[in-house]
Amino acid sequence: MNAIFKTVAVIGKFGAKESATHVLPLCLFLRERGIGVVVDVDTGKAIGDLSFTALDLDQLGKMADLAIVVGGDGTMLSMARALAPHGVPLIGVNLGRLGFLTDVSPQEMFDAVSEILYGQYLTEKRLMLRVALFIRGCEIQEAFAVNDVVIAKGSTFRLIEFSITINAEFVYTQRADGIIVASPTGSTGYSLSAGGPIVHPGVDALILVPICPHTLTNRPIVIPGSSVVEIALVHAIDARVSLDGQSHFDLRAGDHVIVERASHEVLLLHPKSYGYYDMLRKKLHWGQSADA
Amino acid sequence: MNAIFKTVAVIGKFGAKESATHVLPLCLFLRERGIGVVVDVDTGKAIGDLSFTALDLDQLGKMADLAIVVGGDGTMLSMARALAPHGVPLIGVNLGRLGFLTDVSPQEMFDAVSEILYGQYLTEKRLMLRVALFIRGCEIQEAFAVNDVVIAKGSTFRLIEFSITINAEFVYTQRADGIIVASPTGSTGYSLSAGGPIVHPGVDALILVPICPHTLTNRPIVIPGSSVVEIALVHAIDARVSLDGQSHFDLRAGDHVIVERASHEVLLLHPKSYGYYDMLRKKLHWGQSADA
Amino acid sequence: MNAIFKTVAVIGKFGAKESATHVLPLCLFLRERGIGVVVDVDTGKAIGDLSFTALDLDQLGKMADLAIVVGGDGTMLSMARALAPHGVPLIGVNLGRLGFLTDVSPQEMFDAVSEILYGQYLTEKRLMLRVALFIRGCEIQEAFAVNDVVIAKGSTFRLIEFSITINAEFVYTQRADGIIVASPTGSTGYSLSAGGPIVHPGVDALILVPICPHTLTNRPIVIPGSSVVEIALVHAIDARVSLDGQSHFDLRAGDHVIVERASHEVLLLHPKSYGYYDMLRKKLHWGQSADA
Amino acid sequence: MNAIFKTVAVIGKFGAKESATHVLPLCLFLRERGIGVVVDVDTGKAIGDLSFTALDLDQLGKMADLAIVVGGDGTMLSMARALAPHGVPLIGVNLGRLGFLTDVSPQEMFDAVSEILYGQYLTEKRLMLRVALFIRGCEIQEAFAVNDVVIAKGSTFRLIEFSITINAEFVYTQRADGIIVASPTGSTGYSLSAGGPIVHPGVDALILVPICPHTLTNRPIVIPGSSVVEIALVHAIDARVSLDGQSHFDLRAGDHVIVERASHEVLLLHPKSYGYYDMLRKKLHWGQSADA
Repeated sequence: MNAIFKTVAVIGKFGAKESATHVLPLCLFLRERGIGVVVDVDTGKAIGDLSFTALDLDQLGKMADLAIVVGGDGTMLSMARALAPHGVPLIGVNLGRLGFLTDVSPQEMFDAVSEILYGQYLTEKRLMLRVALFIRGCEIQEAFAVNDVVIAKGSTFRLIEFSITINAEFVYTQRADGIIVASPTGSTGYSLSAGGPIVHPGVDALILVPICPHTLTNRPIVIPGSSVVEIALVHAIDARVSLDGQSHFDLRAGDHVIVERASHEVLLLHPKSYGYYDMLRKKLHWGQSADA
Repeated sequence: MNAIFKTVAVIGKFGAKESATHVLPLCLFLRERGIGVVVDVDTGKAIGDLSFTALDLDQLGKMADLAIVVGGDGTMLSMARALAPHGVPLIGVNLGRLGFLTDVSPQEMFDAVSEILYGQYLTEKRLMLRVALFIRGCEIQEAFAVNDVVIAKGSTFRLIEFSITINAEFVYTQRADGIIVASPTGSTGYSLSAGGPIVHPGVDALILVPICPHTLTNRPIVIPGSSVVEIALVHAIDARVSLDGQSHFDLRAGDHVIVERASHEVLLLHPKSYGYYDMLRKKLHWGQSADA
Repeated sequence: MNAIFKTVAVIGKFGAKESATHVLPLCLFLRERGIGVVVDVDTGKAIGDLSFTALDLDQLGKMADLAIVVGGDGTMLSMARALAPHGVPLIGVNLGRLGFLTDVSPQEMFDAVSEILYGQYLTEKRLMLRVALFIRGCEIQEAFAVNDVVIAKGSTFRLIEFSITINAEFVYTQRADGIIVASPTGSTGYSLSAGGPIVHPGVDALILVPICPHTLTNRPIVIPGSSVVEIALVHAIDARVSLDGQSHFDLRAGDHVIVERASHEVLLLHPKSYGYYDMLRKKLHWGQSADA
Repeated sequence: MNAIFKTVAVIGKFGAKESATHVLPLCLFLRERGIGVVVDVDTGKAIGDLSFTALDLDQLGKMADLAIVVGGDGTMLSMARALAPHGVPLIGVNLGRLGFLTDVSPQEMFDAVSEILYGQYLTEKRLMLRVALFIRGCEIQEAFAVNDVVIAKGSTFRLIEFSITINAEFVYTQRADGIIVASPTGSTGYSLSAGGPIVHPGVDALILVPICPHTLTNRPIVIPGSSVVEIALVHAIDARVSLDGQSHFDLRAGDHVIVERASHEVLLLHPKSYGYYDMLRKKLHWGQSADA
């Protein structure tokens, strides 16, 4: 029986020695099964085995039929942004604590990867966010996020003031520490800390969650995935926009940011035993009596 | 020019004298335009004009091409449940305060109705909830709700314990005052008071919001509209299920309730000037500085 | 060395067989040390040893220098209400899960009790609530609560409307499922589930927490312990007041309830190793990564 | 009849032209009544009348028996910090919107000031916060705050990790955007936006409110006013501490901050008609139906 995936990219957590411990055995495991293995440049250095072709992320996206990411949710987020435009599906192997995106544990890694290689898997599509930054009136940057786009005060001042329109319909003007536009994937991340709801990835929606809003009547809103959200900075001496908490751009009053669903999606592959609510329950310790 | 709607049902708020003041002029206004006018039995008595045919709600649903409801959100909810199975679209004229569902004010009633009669309107589909009650193991009741299905403690005891499965996948067991399954329409109602997010009616989703949950890690969840939610009462000496806060059934431990999207929807007609976010902002006073 | 306490009341959880297993050895342990042991009538029956004097709670309060309650927080609450007027200090031994009030585990029971008997303990005073019920204009009942006084809707209708004054100053009129007036002790109970803050028992304060308030601007308020809170039911077809979730009285529109600090306090004795924040952290699982 | 206060400081909002419009008439009003009037240097420039002695804040604190602050809550906060060590009571006249601290409107200014000058007033003591900053192991700064001390992430990174002890008892380690230590006065400020309770100024307490905490079980805590709170930065690449949102110091991992009640208080004078709950209700729009 042949594996469905001919070429598999293996990617370790950037700069993490312990990830190499799991990555090299995985590469060898795949090669033994006749699968072409490619790695990213950093992982190549970390494993120190020159017989595996090391490529930059763009080449990796073009060559690979599948990417196995060994790390945490942070690594997964950056790889999803890099590889999703190429339509490469991803498997997440988590090191340390269970992640929301990295649902395969190191102990079950070989079994889970075997299953998936020979066709036993669930495919899940995750909505991505496309961001357009308009600074001083010009679109200067297009960027993508898997979890969230956060427009927030910088370090010095307590509040920014922004106005939101959705599909060119005015929603509100708000003073707050900031505003999060999250995907359902991001709803279990920063959005949850800020008081947002958990949104199942199967819901085609964006989530708007204000951070410490000045107005007590403000509430998180879940809007259709097809919405075009425009956030204009009305007052801000020191503000910035962050994508997945990993890349940042400075903003000032008059700038605006448009967030909408990207045309491409993230494809996640899970073992057949995967269940979203099961993962949620374990990760959020719902089984336990953290009782009032 | 002829009206698009041949037969229009006009329904006043049950038992409210002041609604008759607006209802009779509306009936006459429609008749002058050559439109067949029917009323429900209660409204017939309230207006006291025997020349308008009074029917029960089921007949009304079969005859009418359009229903104009003059009252509050409560009247609108019960009419939507009664008429939605017949596919009759509804217009809501609010008496008193702006309602989330009754977006036409009495002052603009004649203009708005005119516009709509001659084809100037927005159509909006709203998801309905279908509820199946299993009491002592038998399905004893099928029922429908527009806003929410609430399973909650009765008056005597503080807590009930229930377990939730979604699409037969176990989610959690929880002790709480109760649990709300809301539609997006219901997300601005009781669900919002209990800490749930606002969900745009264009999102195909159900919302699960625990009421005063014992466990601090519990959070509202937004799930796909296609989900089948089963709530089983594990411990409860005194519990009940409420539909739109308007009809109630007693429950006990061992009973369970299945909530899912109904096969039919509510059709709302709005004047062309209607905007969801505009309505939300006015109703929730977002323009005002209820500032912290 | 003689014990500081001459006569000790031992009280088991009402109707719980398993509590007798711990109670009888404790009674014998005390008797061996020359301490007079008295039990309440129910505990007397449960242990089945007629050599221990069984008394009703009022007599117990008059005779005992100390009460050891073996049960859960529920048993502790009812004993605290019964014995606090007599100034009897209490020790709480928890069966099952750690309680907020019953901080001695069965395993450490004998050691902890020994320590306390011979003077090694911390004394903690806990504010109690005095409630006066005015039904149809007459004060018909004076009652006490350790945790909270809850005025809430009964089973049928969604909302009650009440107005609150504090020290005869009008605060607000609110529609909600209900309102909780909690002591700091009660702040980790139902009040916490309803969104209230945790208030250290050393703070001389009362806490007002609305349950599912209709108005989005409502927030929990912490007020001075010396405040006199009056809650008047403006609209309510079916309402009730509950004390510590254990006793209940029906209310209707026009009735009002006055809640204030009682003139007596609950005295809790803790082993020297007790720490409030330590207990809180364990009970609320703050050490664990229930991470967003 | 002579005024109780011989020398009154009048302080306008820094850099605000419109405040001068109200300040000069007030100064003249006071002088006409035989009261010595002093102003701060900025206000002196703004009113442009050299006949009023302009002093720096420290001299003002030594000379004045009373300070009238004409501005917003921001001006009031900085004046309270400057003048409270000298025991000078303050009156707040608000320009623009009603403030929590500036409860006299410009329209009623002359009447209210007259009343107060001749002894018709309520005195209210407000707890202040004393902050000690330990940077690289040395106490480098003692500072004061009226509303709150906020330790929070700087602009770049999403989270800081800190541990909290209260009276040298370990409370918890938490990852979050930050942590607020608020006074009751500050409970209606940033603390409220972050989800904290409203705490009446008559409650002798400090409030701890985490900002976007990573752990779902975290809750605001209200602790005795006598508590010594120590917050140590465990991990932080970019953090800062802010006092009343007005002064800021950079922090890094290993630094710690001690917050406790200051030995001096802020004294506020109010017209006799002042009521705390009345002010709260107006400021938070509790009278209005911002209904769910």
